[in-house]
Amino acid sequence: MNRQTAFLFFSIVFFSGLTIAKTAPDSLQQFATFDECPLISGQVIAPCKIGYRTYGTLNSDKSNALLVPTWFTGTSAEHTYLTSPEILNPEKHFIIIVDALGNGVSTSPSNSKSQVQGNFPQIAITDMVESQHRLVTGVLGIESLHGIVGLSMGGMQAFEWAVRYPDFANRTVVAIGSPRLPAFDIARWTTRNHMLALYRGCQCKEALEAMAGVGMLASVPAKLAQDVTREDTVSTIKSRGKSSPISIAKSWDQQRQAEAMIGHNIARDFGNDLTKAAAETKTQFLIIVAEDDRVVTPQPAQEFAIQVGATVVEMDEDCGHGDPWCAPDTFAKAVSVFINKD
Amino acid sequence: MNRQTAFLFFSIVFFSGLTIAKTAPDSLQQFATFDECPLISGQVIAPCKIGYRTYGTLNSDKSNALLVPTWFTGTSAEHTYLTSPEILNPEKHFIIIVDALGNGVSTSPSNSKSQVQGNFPQIAITDMVESQHRLVTGVLGIESLHGIVGLSMGGMQAFEWAVRYPDFANRTVVAIGSPRLPAFDIARWTTRNHMLALYRGCQCKEALEAMAGVGMLASVPAKLAQDVTREDTVSTIKSRGKSSPISIAKSWDQQRQAEAMIGHNIARDFGNDLTKAAAETKTQFLIIVAEDDRVVTPQPAQEFAIQVGATVVEMDEDCGHGDPWCAPDTFAKAVSVFINKD
Repeated sequence: MNRQTAFLFFSIVFFSGLTIAKTAPDSLQQFATFDECPLISGQVIAPCKIGYRTYGTLNSDKSNALLVPTWFTGTSAEHTYLTSPEILNPEKHFIIIVDALGNGVSTSPSNSKSQVQGNFPQIAITDMVESQHRLVTGVLGIESLHGIVGLSMGGMQAFEWAVRYPDFANRTVVAIGSPRLPAFDIARWTTRNHMLALYRGCQCKEALEAMAGVGMLASVPAKLAQDVTREDTVSTIKSRGKSSPISIAKSWDQQRQAEAMIGHNIARDFGNDLTKAAAETKTQFLIIVAEDDRVVTPQPAQEFAIQVGATVVEMDEDCGHGDPWCAPDTFAKAVSVFINKD
Repeated sequence: MNRQTAFLFFSIVFFSGLTIAKTAPDSLQQFATFDECPLISGQVIAPCKIGYRTYGTLNSDKSNALLVPTWFTGTSAEHTYLTSPEILNPEKHFIIIVDALGNGVSTSPSNSKSQVQGNFPQIAITDMVESQHRLVTGVLGIESLHGIVGLSMGGMQAFEWAVRYPDFANRTVVAIGSPRLPAFDIARWTTRNHMLALYRGCQCKEALEAMAGVGMLASVPAKLAQDVTREDTVSTIKSRGKSSPISIAKSWDQQRQAEAMIGHNIARDFGNDLTKAAAETKTQFLIIVAEDDRVVTPQPAQEFAIQVGATVVEMDEDCGHGDPWCAPDTFAKAVSVFINKD
């Protein structure tokens, strides 16, 4: 597992020593290649390849497919743990985990030979969804999904799918995701992008440690006090900074995906009216939020959940954005029941 | 009012347009000068001057003095609003507001001619208290105080006074302060110091904007969403960064005071046992905490309050560390009643 990703979002998981059992065998990394991926900005990514992995078997009427878009900097490999019988069952469903644009596997600032690093165009959550729609329909020949399941930035993509292709998925699971980011979340990603820029400028440990420190500030204070003593705090920041080196190339992947989240807004095409966007959706929603989440704050998803009559699970495990990993059974059961109900 | 200080801690106040009425006329800035101030590190500040302002008249038996130490980067001038009849009444009390070491008025990295900027030694909250004890006893000839009133870092100094000079003050008010900082708070100040170092390196707007962004992350997300639209978030960070220029010299003031907070621990001389430190105190405590405070998190003060049987006021105004400014009447009444009760 990519340690940087792990640190950014899920360091709590590392420290609590969780293990996910019964993961299905890894599927091979596959790619769909396109001459170009048009972007809503009017620019294009060219050439453009989209990474994905599949688990299980597509049934004869093509009605059992699930799509899993990836979280911030996450790869399809890192999402494999979701293909567990307790969460998403590959014995029953055909699971497609798709690498979001800019994640370092699909075409990204760090791997494009034609649009290198800072020359890689800004991308949108919408662009990720459009590339996935082409993959699912054009490459895999699937015209509807049983469900879409996304965590964090994956949940943002799932929300975007729901307004962009309302008839495509019967069920949509958004965990710790957002229909559009409020000021707090935008401030967080904007600040992080500033720190990436500072890091590119100095390539110094201060910048990595500052990023590690900002990561810790998304913790629930009382929980952090249990995990880290006051005497060990400074050394913990140092070691987290040290264990999370970022190449300049990868820093651009992070920046472009963060920009996509900052600009994310499923009400963009509905006069910025979230109620109208909600009215456009047809899928059934399961919306899982974490009470003290300070990476993707829960209010926008909670408000949207009311508007679409979603099934809502509010987690409160004192792990903030890490709640689905701090209470993996609660998360797994909620997702599994929702995906498998008649 | 110093805009930098204002932004760091109390930007909410600016945006809600609060005004504090009936402030007493400014007292003149005064200084006590010493050949040197010895520090607990073994180093000295030499020469050493301590700034202060007084309001009201010391009574004949010298029993009506109140001491107010300053918050992070705050000056005695900025604390003058506390000398309002509704909070601390200069008609009744002799109020001494003292500039904490390193605040840019008392001897500081930014104004020392012998220990310039980064060559200024690290200081401790204890050192601030020791310099204040010399001022009060040696210069003003006062051997006991009716009370000590501190907000934020001022509250940390008030806590330190209570264990270091248990018989000195009859009453101690700590608002949004801490007996020692837990991991979350240490992470915040450590990160901020990293960002100051980055700023000294680049002297660029990215660093100021990153600091402004980190400042916003201490907000209560739902409250921030009311104050700043998602469309205005990035420009708000830019403008806050722009309106908060820091000279290199002042950046060292901030760093040294932040280090003092990081190292602050009133149980240091009690085998790190807060219960033993609490048992040493004799003063009556009023402890005011803010529910969602992410600058000085409330848990350590709440725990200490139980150990000393303090009067506790828990504010929950959705302004976090800014709660005493968001509900100034609640704050004023709590302080005034406690200071003036028989």
